[in-house]
Amino acid sequence: MKDLHIPFYLRLRDKLAGDIERSVLQHHAKLPSERELSKAYDLNRVTVRQALMQLESEGLIYRLIRRGWYVSPPRLFYDPSKNISFMDNVRAQGHVPETIILSKSELVASVWTNRTMGIELGAPVHLLRRCRMIDGRAVLVEHIHVNAKLCPGLLELPLDCSLTALLREHYGIRISRTRVNMYPAPLNGDQAAELNVVAGAPGLFLTRTSYDQNDQVVEFDQEFWRHDIIEIALEVVNNAVDSE
Amino acid sequence: MKDLHIPFYLRLRDKLAGDIERSVLQHHAKLPSERELSKAYDLNRVTVRQALMQLESEGLIYRLIRRGWYVSPPRLFYDPSKNISFMDNVRAQGHVPETIILSKSELVASVWTNRTMGIELGAPVHLLRRCRMIDGRAVLVEHIHVNAKLCPGLLELPLDCSLTALLREHYGIRISRTRVNMYPAPLNGDQAAELNVVAGAPGLFLTRTSYDQNDQVVEFDQEFWRHDIIEIALEVVNNAVDSE
Repeated sequence: MKDLHIPFYLRLRDKLAGDIERSVLQHHAKLPSERELSKAYDLNRVTVRQALMQLESEGLIYRLIRRGWYVSPPRLFYDPSKNISFMDNVRAQGHVPETIILSKSELVASVWTNRTMGIELGAPVHLLRRCRMIDGRAVLVEHIHVNAKLCPGLLELPLDCSLTALLREHYGIRISRTRVNMYPAPLNGDQAAELNVVAGAPGLFLTRTSYDQNDQVVEFDQEFWRHDIIEIALEVVNNAVDSE
Repeated sequence: MKDLHIPFYLRLRDKLAGDIERSVLQHHAKLPSERELSKAYDLNRVTVRQALMQLESEGLIYRLIRRGWYVSPPRLFYDPSKNISFMDNVRAQGHVPETIILSKSELVASVWTNRTMGIELGAPVHLLRRCRMIDGRAVLVEHIHVNAKLCPGLLELPLDCSLTALLREHYGIRISRTRVNMYPAPLNGDQAAELNVVAGAPGLFLTRTSYDQNDQVVEFDQEFWRHDIIEIALEVVNNAVDSE
């Protein structure tokens, strides 16, 4: 072995990460102060701070200005490779989901809608804006565009549930495939206000383009998530291993 | 139809999003000023700003303090459901990848490593830190932990390539499955410095836990991405449609 020296900041990081992992330090618990950690582990303040910043980069702890460091709460796991609705996913993880209708309106397809959804210019589009909550806390705002020709009257139905289920039950529309795209983007304007975060706060922007059984885009969903709520988690099986 | 009124801010948002989509407004192009947009579309400044903030939330434009709004550059598509290496993925999208070794060391498994990778306490672990670039620009820093018992001497090999390929070719280790987890988290400390961003800048934190043909964790990779580089993109096919 070349180098048995483990950087001190990584030792402290591993110690604290291990304590979080085993719930010795619980969600939302306040960490000891930097001064206390420095004393307890006989490390200088720069090293302590380096360890804490590493843990922050990994999302394991968060900082409150002038109040110190806290253990991050658990996130909602979301597997984009599975077809599970928000409501079912939240319930399966032991939490209470809720959907609030913010607005609903009939638009006509713009050049952008035409290119995004393949709806002809000027044809009708439903726009539904909803806010979704977990245990009473707003976690995402979504703008849902639906091809109105495929489901006239959709906006008259109860919309605080799974849209996929509504489309199937009322219009015989089955989602054959969904393209999911996502990246971090700042929250601001309406979204920030509805999610109770300051304008410019980090978020996760997610879009879902859903095709029906005729491979026509039926729904284009833009989701604006609080950055500290969701964890994307999926498993990839490499089928080639056995045959290699 | 209930309501044919399309909010003015959404009309402007759709117009600009359409112009970006069709490359009428090109990557990195500066948008007209808020005053100019207000005049050109006969909208008040509040409405113009609302449209721009909406586009920023969608990651389509970004703001430079006191300089205005710009069209976001294209992102690297990454499909976590496919087994494609960073090097191959970047090349496939017409860019030049590069891998820089930041440090390599031999550690012993901590409580945290034990729980994360199933390596017994005190057993040897390789730690490799690398920075990856696209077209000469640093885009991610990664900390790779490898079970050293399975691949003694790994750190002596050339490490600026695909580790998966090295493990297969030199040690007969084949990755049978990989668990991918990711969420937004701030960049700071070493990572921020290596990626040339200010401490606390938004990032995307991604981990990859790879199992070998005996279902043992061989590699645990932590990746710290600049938030403006990557777009997660995958397609989900709903096989149940035909049989329903």
